[in-house]
Amino acid sequence: MNDITMTLNADELIRMALREDISSEDVSTNSVMPEAKPGEVELICKQDGIICGMDVYERVFKILDANTVVEKYVKDGDEVKKGQLMAKVKGDIRVLLSGERVALNYLQRMSGIATYTNEVASLLKGSKTVLLDTRKTTPNMRIFEKYAVKCGGGQNHRYNLSDGILLKDNHIGAAGSITKAIEMAKAYAPFVRKIEIETETLEQVKEAVEAGADIIMLDNMDVATMKEAVKIIDGRAKTECSGNVTRENIANIIDSGVDYVSSGALTHSAPILDISMKNLHAI
Amino acid sequence: MNDITMTLNADELIRMALREDISSEDVSTNSVMPEAKPGEVELICKQDGIICGMDVYERVFKILDANTVVEKYVKDGDEVKKGQLMAKVKGDIRVLLSGERVALNYLQRMSGIATYTNEVASLLKGSKTVLLDTRKTTPNMRIFEKYAVKCGGGQNHRYNLSDGILLKDNHIGAAGSITKAIEMAKAYAPFVRKIEIETETLEQVKEAVEAGADIIMLDNMDVATMKEAVKIIDGRAKTECSGNVTRENIANIIDSGVDYVSSGALTHSAPILDISMKNLHAI
Amino acid sequence: MNDITMTLNADELIRMALREDISSEDVSTNSVMPEAKPGEVELICKQDGIICGMDVYERVFKILDANTVVEKYVKDGDEVKKGQLMAKVKGDIRVLLSGERVALNYLQRMSGIATYTNEVASLLKGSKTVLLDTRKTTPNMRIFEKYAVKCGGGQNHRYNLSDGILLKDNHIGAAGSITKAIEMAKAYAPFVRKIEIETETLEQVKEAVEAGADIIMLDNMDVATMKEAVKIIDGRAKTECSGNVTRENIANIIDSGVDYVSSGALTHSAPILDISMKNLHAI
Amino acid sequence: MNDITMTLNADELIRMALREDISSEDVSTNSVMPEAKPGEVELICKQDGIICGMDVYERVFKILDANTVVEKYVKDGDEVKKGQLMAKVKGDIRVLLSGERVALNYLQRMSGIATYTNEVASLLKGSKTVLLDTRKTTPNMRIFEKYAVKCGGGQNHRYNLSDGILLKDNHIGAAGSITKAIEMAKAYAPFVRKIEIETETLEQVKEAVEAGADIIMLDNMDVATMKEAVKIIDGRAKTECSGNVTRENIANIIDSGVDYVSSGALTHSAPILDISMKNLHAI
Amino acid sequence: MNDITMTLNADELIRMALREDISSEDVSTNSVMPEAKPGEVELICKQDGIICGMDVYERVFKILDANTVVEKYVKDGDEVKKGQLMAKVKGDIRVLLSGERVALNYLQRMSGIATYTNEVASLLKGSKTVLLDTRKTTPNMRIFEKYAVKCGGGQNHRYNLSDGILLKDNHIGAAGSITKAIEMAKAYAPFVRKIEIETETLEQVKEAVEAGADIIMLDNMDVATMKEAVKIIDGRAKTECSGNVTRENIANIIDSGVDYVSSGALTHSAPILDISMKNLHAI
Amino acid sequence: MNDITMTLNADELIRMALREDISSEDVSTNSVMPEAKPGEVELICKQDGIICGMDVYERVFKILDANTVVEKYVKDGDEVKKGQLMAKVKGDIRVLLSGERVALNYLQRMSGIATYTNEVASLLKGSKTVLLDTRKTTPNMRIFEKYAVKCGGGQNHRYNLSDGILLKDNHIGAAGSITKAIEMAKAYAPFVRKIEIETETLEQVKEAVEAGADIIMLDNMDVATMKEAVKIIDGRAKTECSGNVTRENIANIIDSGVDYVSSGALTHSAPILDISMKNLHAI
Repeated sequence: MNDITMTLNADELIRMALREDISSEDVSTNSVMPEAKPGEVELICKQDGIICGMDVYERVFKILDANTVVEKYVKDGDEVKKGQLMAKVKGDIRVLLSGERVALNYLQRMSGIATYTNEVASLLKGSKTVLLDTRKTTPNMRIFEKYAVKCGGGQNHRYNLSDGILLKDNHIGAAGSITKAIEMAKAYAPFVRKIEIETETLEQVKEAVEAGADIIMLDNMDVATMKEAVKIIDGRAKTECSGNVTRENIANIIDSGVDYVSSGALTHSAPILDISMKNLHAI
Repeated sequence: MNDITMTLNADELIRMALREDISSEDVSTNSVMPEAKPGEVELICKQDGIICGMDVYERVFKILDANTVVEKYVKDGDEVKKGQLMAKVKGDIRVLLSGERVALNYLQRMSGIATYTNEVASLLKGSKTVLLDTRKTTPNMRIFEKYAVKCGGGQNHRYNLSDGILLKDNHIGAAGSITKAIEMAKAYAPFVRKIEIETETLEQVKEAVEAGADIIMLDNMDVATMKEAVKIIDGRAKTECSGNVTRENIANIIDSGVDYVSSGALTHSAPILDISMKNLHAI
Repeated sequence: MNDITMTLNADELIRMALREDISSEDVSTNSVMPEAKPGEVELICKQDGIICGMDVYERVFKILDANTVVEKYVKDGDEVKKGQLMAKVKGDIRVLLSGERVALNYLQRMSGIATYTNEVASLLKGSKTVLLDTRKTTPNMRIFEKYAVKCGGGQNHRYNLSDGILLKDNHIGAAGSITKAIEMAKAYAPFVRKIEIETETLEQVKEAVEAGADIIMLDNMDVATMKEAVKIIDGRAKTECSGNVTRENIANIIDSGVDYVSSGALTHSAPILDISMKNLHAI
Repeated sequence: MNDITMTLNADELIRMALREDISSEDVSTNSVMPEAKPGEVELICKQDGIICGMDVYERVFKILDANTVVEKYVKDGDEVKKGQLMAKVKGDIRVLLSGERVALNYLQRMSGIATYTNEVASLLKGSKTVLLDTRKTTPNMRIFEKYAVKCGGGQNHRYNLSDGILLKDNHIGAAGSITKAIEMAKAYAPFVRKIEIETETLEQVKEAVEAGADIIMLDNMDVATMKEAVKIIDGRAKTECSGNVTRENIANIIDSGVDYVSSGALTHSAPILDISMKNLHAI
Repeated sequence: MNDITMTLNADELIRMALREDISSEDVSTNSVMPEAKPGEVELICKQDGIICGMDVYERVFKILDANTVVEKYVKDGDEVKKGQLMAKVKGDIRVLLSGERVALNYLQRMSGIATYTNEVASLLKGSKTVLLDTRKTTPNMRIFEKYAVKCGGGQNHRYNLSDGILLKDNHIGAAGSITKAIEMAKAYAPFVRKIEIETETLEQVKEAVEAGADIIMLDNMDVATMKEAVKIIDGRAKTECSGNVTRENIANIIDSGVDYVSSGALTHSAPILDISMKNLHAI
Repeated sequence: MNDITMTLNADELIRMALREDISSEDVSTNSVMPEAKPGEVELICKQDGIICGMDVYERVFKILDANTVVEKYVKDGDEVKKGQLMAKVKGDIRVLLSGERVALNYLQRMSGIATYTNEVASLLKGSKTVLLDTRKTTPNMRIFEKYAVKCGGGQNHRYNLSDGILLKDNHIGAAGSITKAIEMAKAYAPFVRKIEIETETLEQVKEAVEAGADIIMLDNMDVATMKEAVKIIDGRAKTECSGNVTRENIANIIDSGVDYVSSGALTHSAPILDISMKNLHAI
């Protein structure tokens, strides 16, 4: 993760997560360790997957104690294997104990997303279709989860409501028509944004492409209709197939020729990657 | 969710989640709807499950606009069925559109955890063994996720490092022995806390119970050993079986007579419950 | 200003501005007015211009006391005349006195920018060239200043570094070439963003348009070169003339056929619009 | 700027300004520069003026990356000339690019105010009359703008409503009379504050000086009346001429013998000083 | 307490104090009261004293639940008697229980300070000498404690380091002399501030008064010396006797003719006033 | 104080306390010391007592300037004597001057509590009865005050409403009976918490011990009744005598055989320990 993003946007969230876990003090550790004592612990992968969040993991310990040293043997996006030693953390044992859970909570989730994204993205390999995430992220985790999607080989859709235009049926309804909605968005939105619009029928696709949409979402269309839509659009706009990519239908989606397929499950339903800290010992 | 908890501890997190999604403005909505316009939308369940997070869902819209009205037909902990109408939200359509994603992101995750917890808890039904969560929650989501576990029929383990004692192998190592660790914790920790200690062998179990541990965690023991441990302890301390409850081993765990079984998966790997907002229309 | 934007993104800034001006209490007012006392005051324009910030002005008083009533007779974007009564504010006189300066500080600056933008935009009237702002805004005032530009008849360029791509000479240098920079941005950036690139020569313009830039900034080119650039681009990308629009050169810029002209002065050097609160009296 | 003020009161504002500009990441820079790369850039003045904000400028980069080095060749309050090299900044090129705009936004505004203040203050040179600022500062910029006034050769009026007493017509009205208002302020306000009161007539001046005002503001009086007021006061209180100092009337104001003249324009209408960063190159 | 001060400066501190006491939820109350239930409780004084903090007390409950009603029968500054009913609080019993401790912690401390201040101030009654507080307040409690001093009949010295000048021996040492220190302060500090300087000898007093100090602190002088100092100063500056007013020496201090006497003990060592909430019952 | 607690939970409070005292700048110091100048100052005890807060004291200066060096000759919990040199602080004299008051405000209060606790705890020496604090702490000072109690030889009761169960009369009333209240708490509260219940009669004591309370508070019982209660409980629960330990009744309380005695006065009415900074000089 870029250092500036970490400093400006991630640090405060990490600090909050630490305060969530240590609202006054780590009573267990403080009971038995009144004084600092140098130690070392290993970060071990317990499942095959794609690792993501190594810098965030490091940052947790650095925030607790800037003197902690994290020797990293893998970097975000790397494939890791069950049993692999991924890092050693050296510092005050109290810091290693008190920071362990929050550090792993980030690392496991981010790696879980990267791993799951990677599996889905691999189904698209060889095609021109690109895998996208959505805004279905865990509250206050978006900066970490969107980054994890990228590490797993996906692409990011808009970051939030402020930096992308996506005109859905309700927006179209409010505007009066697809054409009118696109016109209004062009008039209102900062000119650096592309305009995406949701369509459900081929009529709508036609209207959208003629009104100058930059991206056309094909919502809940069967593959045949998508194919037809792609033909109508004929390169005048990018196309996004929204949702429900599965092993079964993936070949068909690719075959339809859409440019992008988006999946909320990447961030809302990926299980974690199992990782643990082992062999803590004084040094 | 209790109103005071909501006001003091959840509101700020919800507000941050909204700012995460709307860092300057909802460009799409503002493009096509320059003025407020009253509308209504339905909250529909798309999967069977246990609902959780209705108050948080409501709060998202109330924070955006205190005049929004959420008519709720279900309450947290209720079983819900695919297709069920769970609520109607009435207010400025711009508020309904801009708040939708954050509101659903909370509701779907919390309901996913409640649903998954409920499934696991049902496996323990009829036994005296109680299901517990862990601290393996999503960063900055603990207040929501621990509550969801409860709605699903689980119990909460300690909230964080500040309000519960759990002496693990490294704490024991630092103290010198199980006996010493328990003594130190009794001397240090606020006297209202129970003291839990992790054990891996029957020798350790014996030492722990004699040293006056309140709760003894049986870590990675097979069922036969757990049974033996429970017999040794003989009611002098509570017992917790840590981890890995599955359909296959559940009967055996119950049979061992442990008081509690804890599961990180409740919060770290539950998929979301699919829920959506439909039929938005002006009123 | 949209209510959601106000609630989520402006309110905290306004509250901070109030704390900046009242770090403990308003000593003068509290000295002479120990008790609440209802009063009314008029908001009068002292210069012709375009008003902007009426909602922010109102919000300052509402934050101090939710019972304050602001009757507004003009709305953002309206032309106002010297001497015009623009609003009446009714409430506890202490609130009217303590909030006056912060409320005016926002209103005068926002109206100053709207007025200045309007003057510049009027020079472009009748042409297809659109006036844009820049990121040269006052720190922690961007949400107010970009909105003011819009009220004055300008359009917004990207909001910040996170929601728009603008590849400048240093980015191009780092990438190796214009073509490479555009490729890298397409590969990296969320797909909803247009890609803008800075060019200084016609060679660069050619390379940029062929590499698929969405917007091409013509930096420091004379009018003849801009004209040539526009001809080369031939509608395949939008064009932005960066900077220094003056009464003298405006006709030429328009004549060059560029789509957009951007001006930092709109936000960094507009003088305020003179506005005052008068005739405070008890009611 | 004093280091303690910077740490306690400016840093958080600067951090907010950076987050305003980088709400998630600098997409352009991150697209083309995935790795850190050392570089250097020059800070060049493009207009003659008084420089102010060099420490704030430096702080922006230090907050992004503590390893950035800013070699400063000028210090706040110095006269600078068009074309002058004022500093070199060395560090990760990504930091130099991502911090540039916010750093310049502060430096240009603060220098603009210092330069404009300096011009006005020079008109008072040789007289005993001192130039003052007001509370007409940009919201959330006061700590920077009041400091800039000082660097430009002005003096600061009260910082905010909490640290100075200024009894205006409405305060006087609420108290009942000038005498009563001054009495109430003496009874209420912390005893370390001077008491200033606004007067519009010579009657009021007489009442104010007899009631023991420390400072008497002469509001909208013509020069002859001011002269008379100064004579009446006869050194028993300081005098402040509020507002509208211009090249034309300045000699007369000085001639009236007032101690202070205050000007809101110093902070609300000074144009920026043009400054840029040039010649970024890898090192 | 003034409403604006409450809203801008006290509310956030109160909210933090509530979060300090309820970091996740009130487990005891939530265990036995799953639902809201209207109730009423009485606020009873258990000691004679001066009450202070009634508005803060009310605010604690209002922040937890805006529907809570506090009927107040006394107001800040009133004398109260042991056993006196001071208020009734009506609202959700859970709110009454969860807010009780924080509300009383504020009220008891503020009333303790008001009561103690009142006792000391009464020793000065009949003289012209005024009692002052200091900056020896509890961290993050100054706004409440300085207000309590006032309610008890004392006056406030400067609020903090930013709004008052007090040149102590180290400042004088750094400047070179008393005269130089005063000159430097006059040149640097906003002109609305009085300048106070610490003196230990009559030589210093002479120098201070001649250099134009507004207030002269007589530090650790015996009464005879103070008398002499007051004579030297002869009304040209105010005088402050710093510290250690006791029943024994008070007559002498008054007799010395100093204008002010300051006491840190008012805020750093006043015991609380005993107050409790009784007779909670459902309604 | 543990470093992690300092970093996560104390630092922000200390920073707020510094901003409370320096809302814009230290005007006195900045007037006379425009430049940094190295100096040294001594920390001297002016009363016998138990020192507490040395790390917090150091932290105040470190937050202002990380280069400040505090050489500590005593550590928290040590006995100190009038006149004893406890530390030397070296750094920029401006930092030493600007931080002095906040640093002492923490140190004096924390030491005052430790000293007073120590006096009370010494009365219990030789008995098995342990001294406890309460939640009657100063708002936003709990983390410091509970720690000070420990340094003085007391033990901590629950930290706040979230980490301990104490069922008082109103909770019992809401539940219906002592038995029911304990059952509800066992069902609701995280299983790591002990359950404490308040009793006023021996009947209640019997019910509480049979219902399985972990701790029984004996509220306002005379010594004879307490003795009887202890006999009834017979080791099946811990006992806490709430309040009002005095020199006079202490022997009796001990004699009653209760395990704990709690005292609110430790934190709400301890006077400060007098400490000062002396002999500041340039080095």
